[in-house]
Amino acid sequence: MVGDLPVVDAETATGHVADEATVLTSGFGSVGYPKAVPLALADADRDLALTVVSGGSTGAEVDVNLVEAGAIARRYPYQARPPAREAANDGSIAFSDRHISTLGDAVQFGGLVDPDVALVEAVAVGEDWLIPSMSVGQTPAFVDSVDSIVVEVNHAQPRALGQFHDIYRPDIPPNREPVPLSAPDERIGGPRIEFDPDALDAVVETDRRGDPYDFRDPTDADRAIADNLQQFLTAEVDASPLFEDSVRLQFGVGSLGNALMGALGEADFGNRDLIYYGEVIQDGLLDLLDDGHLDAASATSLALSADGQDRLFAAPERYAEDVVLRPGDISNRPALIDRFGVVAVNSALEVDVYGHVNSTHVDGSRMLNGVGGSGDFTRNGALSIVALPSMAGDEISRVVPMVPHVDHTEHDVDVIVTEHGVADLRGTSPRERSSLLVENCADPAVREELDAYLDSVEPVGGHEPHDLETAFSWRE
Amino acid sequence: MVGDLPVVDAETATGHVADEATVLTSGFGSVGYPKAVPLALADADRDLALTVVSGGSTGAEVDVNLVEAGAIARRYPYQARPPAREAANDGSIAFSDRHISTLGDAVQFGGLVDPDVALVEAVAVGEDWLIPSMSVGQTPAFVDSVDSIVVEVNHAQPRALGQFHDIYRPDIPPNREPVPLSAPDERIGGPRIEFDPDALDAVVETDRRGDPYDFRDPTDADRAIADNLQQFLTAEVDASPLFEDSVRLQFGVGSLGNALMGALGEADFGNRDLIYYGEVIQDGLLDLLDDGHLDAASATSLALSADGQDRLFAAPERYAEDVVLRPGDISNRPALIDRFGVVAVNSALEVDVYGHVNSTHVDGSRMLNGVGGSGDFTRNGALSIVALPSMAGDEISRVVPMVPHVDHTEHDVDVIVTEHGVADLRGTSPRERSSLLVENCADPAVREELDAYLDSVEPVGGHEPHDLETAFSWRE
Repeated sequence: MVGDLPVVDAETATGHVADEATVLTSGFGSVGYPKAVPLALADADRDLALTVVSGGSTGAEVDVNLVEAGAIARRYPYQARPPAREAANDGSIAFSDRHISTLGDAVQFGGLVDPDVALVEAVAVGEDWLIPSMSVGQTPAFVDSVDSIVVEVNHAQPRALGQFHDIYRPDIPPNREPVPLSAPDERIGGPRIEFDPDALDAVVETDRRGDPYDFRDPTDADRAIADNLQQFLTAEVDASPLFEDSVRLQFGVGSLGNALMGALGEADFGNRDLIYYGEVIQDGLLDLLDDGHLDAASATSLALSADGQDRLFAAPERYAEDVVLRPGDISNRPALIDRFGVVAVNSALEVDVYGHVNSTHVDGSRMLNGVGGSGDFTRNGALSIVALPSMAGDEISRVVPMVPHVDHTEHDVDVIVTEHGVADLRGTSPRERSSLLVENCADPAVREELDAYLDSVEPVGGHEPHDLETAFSWRE
Repeated sequence: MVGDLPVVDAETATGHVADEATVLTSGFGSVGYPKAVPLALADADRDLALTVVSGGSTGAEVDVNLVEAGAIARRYPYQARPPAREAANDGSIAFSDRHISTLGDAVQFGGLVDPDVALVEAVAVGEDWLIPSMSVGQTPAFVDSVDSIVVEVNHAQPRALGQFHDIYRPDIPPNREPVPLSAPDERIGGPRIEFDPDALDAVVETDRRGDPYDFRDPTDADRAIADNLQQFLTAEVDASPLFEDSVRLQFGVGSLGNALMGALGEADFGNRDLIYYGEVIQDGLLDLLDDGHLDAASATSLALSADGQDRLFAAPERYAEDVVLRPGDISNRPALIDRFGVVAVNSALEVDVYGHVNSTHVDGSRMLNGVGGSGDFTRNGALSIVALPSMAGDEISRVVPMVPHVDHTEHDVDVIVTEHGVADLRGTSPRERSSLLVENCADPAVREELDAYLDSVEPVGGHEPHDLETAFSWRE
């Protein structure tokens, strides 16, 4: 800690957060979020009604403690903790679900919120700069959008994390220049996020790691999905001119994504470079880096388990050679996903027979976490794959006649993979898609029932025949 | 016509189209499509099962004559004529609906089709180049994707159309450089589309204009929608830093879009430049150019009525000063829509109370035309507006509890406008959205019924409460 920084304790720092403030927080992939000030706010005897905007998912201090204290009135754009989820679902928190790639713009120019204070974690801070910790998220856009910045400097995370960061800020439209990044592993900025020194109101010292993801071990279904995916990808990279020298992949957040990443070590892509261009580095990628299977990785978060954090912190310099962390509006930027020709692999709750995908709402009503970056990659990938188990438990098919909520439309999804097989939907009509999905992807136990639905709707006619009376009650 | 071009009649040219060929055609906005060879194919005594891929909508020769001759087996990605629509709906043609921006890539690299021949209209052709006519569409990607090119040179359209065209081809990923376009009216290429001279198999001379759009006169509802839109936009451009010097707008294809464009002449945006960055130039824009209200326009098609064509052909040089036609994968490119901060205004069939939009499927089953470019602009616009009348006829509300087909998700739509008012959905929770949409946008005659649905589903709970048994039968 240097110079004349306004170092205070967390409780004092809460004085910069008004009762109804709009607070922009760091954090993505449940790491890199502020901890001490949210806890102090949750403990304060105040009547808070905060609007909390984070870059992505945060940790318990924000989405458990603050929620349970009744301190959050509005929450954007993603949450992954039961109390925040319940509050979004019962309407006690006004939650709004947004794509990651456009969040920075929406906060800074887009009329989403009228921001008051940025509350961000760092591994180092100066009078007009900070170095983010385990995730970059939307911190660059956030500190540019406010007159008041509160920084938590977390000594439990190595300052060497700065070696991962590559901070670049897009210009304001309409004179926004293209992002000058010509390869996924290139660097176009430095580790520091700069800000107006007048805005730095408080610096709080903390010494506690993030509350990380806990990945479950791969299931049999996960392994079978990974096998089907690899078989498909191996053939695809041989056939397509897009993959002559390298394969660029993104995997979604979560245990299945982590398992699919990890299984790539067994894939045979010949002499091609294997590159990750996504939003989170999960434990599976560390294995690939250790084994030399992965040539480079770009993301906005080191979304590691506690064990993964131990591995990383033991040798940050080594991993930083191959890994770049970028702001969320660069990691997820449509233009870059397009230019690098990324193969997007995301999971989902369910898919329907015509290729529409529900990623967020159980039964169309109950929100899980949010769309996150899945739309950024699915919509803009050179090849967009949705990988999911065919069943939820023993009873519920994840291949259904009609999804009751659509996050990714038929126009955006190329390929569906389950443990039973692959449906390559490219260039198919809806009727062809329904055959492929039922035959190749649905659980054998429900195929007959799905076919019966499809037969029953044929008299309705139309490009995507549906019976709106039975579309949601097909198995009754 | 110069040099050693393989000039033949249309019937002879059909010899380059095998019975089951995949034919890539020019055409966008019902102009610039091939005419003589499709007619000759329709008249031929052959057992054709063609796959026809066009840049956008074509004319009767493709989507009426060829369809009625039973010559088309597969059709991508958009159609706007009743026979093609009926065939897509009854499944006799396998139709696949795609975003415009990614079509060129999907054809060239993406596994969508295995192309055989490009059949394209031009106003001039040489041994290794052509100049497109009224639309550019996907012709640059198409001629790059095939070993056989058939060009129709249409003498009914002035060669001066070349002055509109600015042809630029993106590189192949992953080494795809950013498109070096720094303003909507900039030019980065020339009028010619170049190709391998060995690929030019036939040149056919024609002398007939396209079969254009016929715009209906604005209705009272159209005018009220235009008023509400203008009032909203006027306040927005004053409030947002994105519009300090200029307003960049896109309007969807069709009579409502045309009416909304035309009404912009009455908008007061102060001293700001008014710029169109969309996919089609419709008649309404000619009025704005004539009146000096519009400073520049970029699109991929001059989708004009017969009268509009007369006006344009009388003075192409004058309009070409302010209008640029680009390939469809440039006009609709996510990266450029983002960089220019475009305000996207598109119409729809219906919207639901949570902000999901159906643009394509009546009752969830019957296809109209296709998603076209509406997803490109809605997903990537700095501000995405859906404008539509509140009712279809006297009985059917276009604001419904749940749309039975989703083309644009809640994550992509910022504002809904009807003749009754404006719902600004930015930063709102689903419950807030439903109030705004019912109160501001739905027809007063159906508000009570919509509210009754919303009350009835509140016990279901969840972030977007729905009763899947009544969501589609709310008015019964």
